[in-house]
Amino acid sequence: MINQKLYEIGTEPSVIRALFAYGLEKAKEIGGENVYDYSLGNPSIPAPEKVNETIRCLTESVDSLSLHGYSMAAGFESVRKTVADILSRRFSFPIRGRDLFFTCGAAPALISVIKALAAEASSEIIAIAPYFSEYKYFVENNGAAFKVVPPDVEAFQVNYEALSAAIGEHTQAVIVNSPNNPSGVVYTEQTLRKIGAILKEKEEQYGHPVYIIADEPYRELVYGEVTVPFIPAIYENTVVCYSYSKSLSLPGERIGYVYIPQNCADSEVLMAAVSGAARIMGHVCPPSLFQRVVEECADEKPDLKAYEENRNLLYNSLTEMGYECAKPDGAFYLFVKAPNGDDRAFSEKAKLDYNLLVVPGAEFGCPGFLRLAYCVSNDMIRRSLPAFEKILKDYSEEG
Amino acid sequence: MINQKLYEIGTEPSVIRALFAYGLEKAKEIGGENVYDYSLGNPSIPAPEKVNETIRCLTESVDSLSLHGYSMAAGFESVRKTVADILSRRFSFPIRGRDLFFTCGAAPALISVIKALAAEASSEIIAIAPYFSEYKYFVENNGAAFKVVPPDVEAFQVNYEALSAAIGEHTQAVIVNSPNNPSGVVYTEQTLRKIGAILKEKEEQYGHPVYIIADEPYRELVYGEVTVPFIPAIYENTVVCYSYSKSLSLPGERIGYVYIPQNCADSEVLMAAVSGAARIMGHVCPPSLFQRVVEECADEKPDLKAYEENRNLLYNSLTEMGYECAKPDGAFYLFVKAPNGDDRAFSEKAKLDYNLLVVPGAEFGCPGFLRLAYCVSNDMIRRSLPAFEKILKDYSEEG
Repeated sequence: MINQKLYEIGTEPSVIRALFAYGLEKAKEIGGENVYDYSLGNPSIPAPEKVNETIRCLTESVDSLSLHGYSMAAGFESVRKTVADILSRRFSFPIRGRDLFFTCGAAPALISVIKALAAEASSEIIAIAPYFSEYKYFVENNGAAFKVVPPDVEAFQVNYEALSAAIGEHTQAVIVNSPNNPSGVVYTEQTLRKIGAILKEKEEQYGHPVYIIADEPYRELVYGEVTVPFIPAIYENTVVCYSYSKSLSLPGERIGYVYIPQNCADSEVLMAAVSGAARIMGHVCPPSLFQRVVEECADEKPDLKAYEENRNLLYNSLTEMGYECAKPDGAFYLFVKAPNGDDRAFSEKAKLDYNLLVVPGAEFGCPGFLRLAYCVSNDMIRRSLPAFEKILKDYSEEG
Repeated sequence: MINQKLYEIGTEPSVIRALFAYGLEKAKEIGGENVYDYSLGNPSIPAPEKVNETIRCLTESVDSLSLHGYSMAAGFESVRKTVADILSRRFSFPIRGRDLFFTCGAAPALISVIKALAAEASSEIIAIAPYFSEYKYFVENNGAAFKVVPPDVEAFQVNYEALSAAIGEHTQAVIVNSPNNPSGVVYTEQTLRKIGAILKEKEEQYGHPVYIIADEPYRELVYGEVTVPFIPAIYENTVVCYSYSKSLSLPGERIGYVYIPQNCADSEVLMAAVSGAARIMGHVCPPSLFQRVVEECADEKPDLKAYEENRNLLYNSLTEMGYECAKPDGAFYLFVKAPNGDDRAFSEKAKLDYNLLVVPGAEFGCPGFLRLAYCVSNDMIRRSLPAFEKILKDYSEEG
């Protein structure tokens, strides 16, 4: 008499969590310094100083009732306005406070949009592989069918033919996640324009909007001269889901938003439906204190030096050894080709023989690759390099 | 191509919010001191001092990565353990950390449990009138049918015959909300034992558990010598949904939990399904900072003096005037009989003629009554009394 499907979802082992748990256990046995854990995508640089300063300042200067009180369902008006103004300036794009609906992080943002777009039993939402594995759960359990576009395993941009073929009359949206988890690749403007052109063609063919859901928690995490194009300026029917988890290193504080551009098709109806979805899930009024923190800190830039150094060290070392790797411009992931193509076998071997924890790409709809989350200490990377070298040697000796 | 039902839910006017908004507009016109707003159930006593002290201390003493990082889906183990120990002592009942699943407030807690118990298309969940109006949305939009037991309009305990008649073979749970919103009444131990006896009988009749979902955000808000019985000690198959919104005056910070007692039927399966429900709604890992605040402050008692003074002033004044009122032992609501039985007419008249904002009981499945949220300033109550007196006079002159 308990919902069987939810029971299964609640007990389904997550490969990533299992690897992480294995690492913790192993560390007790052989010491943490001998386990090389690249499993979890958890920020390893602290929140900007200003975050904790702002928190302290707010507790001293704002009346407790107001500070910890309910906001409106979509967030405080002043917070929405301030963030909208900052985004308008940053992207030279007209964004109003009322176009933002604040949420308890990116997952509720995404899920509210998915629910709002699950208009009929036949509605479909598409993800492009490699994709964040929770998408499947979010879509399938919130009223839509989940379809996957197979990956472009060369450049890790998009397999356009497959995308075009996947979109049918029931397709409501395509989730675009750039900088990408797990590949670390940033979609170029050219890629986004091509996606937009395909979607526009399909919209005309089927006579209804096909939205891009831009899932952008890693927007600020890019290295070198790379920029992340602002998708609503490229494709009108774009809805953005954002979280401050990574940009302000606040993953535990659950603060993000849905942004529905004014000129997006049916924007007002869609915003109302997002609000309805949030209401029936109890997602309304995200944490008040962190709304105000965001209001003060939304323009803070994360200090990406540590991530960039990690990326450079790991990427350069692995490619020198002979590993092949997707172009790692953003997020904090490397997506490395499994030497003999078998990602699960590599992950298992690395774990058992070398206490090296990497996630098989199959978890992200992209077998044959391995995700390395380099939000770790630079020192751990350094110490892990011999293990990578030895595995490669093992494989070449076997081969 | 947008989900029509969610659009409607997102745009459906809430009578309470509309009254509140009217009050804000009116205040601009005639001055806030001339509007008597009893519409919203928003705490009016500040969080205990220790809350903000703890927040400041945590930002100074805990490493930022750990402080603002992800917890496990159900919360930090240490937080679950600490709170479980406190509750065990308080209720002399064995509660383990693993029996608690922390959530972003009471609404997500309730909704996760509702989803977990919506096992089949035919599943039903029952509320006892008067009831918090969002229950209907939560149940109907998360997989179950919503049934209402008509109120006991004398003592505002429970209409047992109606409860017994309402429970059928598809009934999965009965929501019990005490101290009650909107009546302010606390269910006695005798009432709870009677509910338990009825449910037990039905369990035997239908051969499956019929749970109590105890929605207890107002547990600590009781006055005088009244105590709130601990339901799991009375009826085994009870699941508790709790929030610190009221007890710590932190409504905006979204922190609460689901408690599933070890001896509750199918407790482990139910906990897994709650966890699955939280996962597909993106409710996992509630705000980390406030988990730690709760860890430190869970045993803090709110200073209820202000609420109690408000209750006494309002209750005594209104009953002296001749109003009839449910026994107001808890929460921060009075449930007052509409003088001529027409709650909507009274609410409208009070608003238009006297800028007095009270919510019609019909909103809570109990027409003929009016909800007054006395989480306001004592001074406002004092100033509002002539308006109550005048309306009564108007009615008696009309009659």
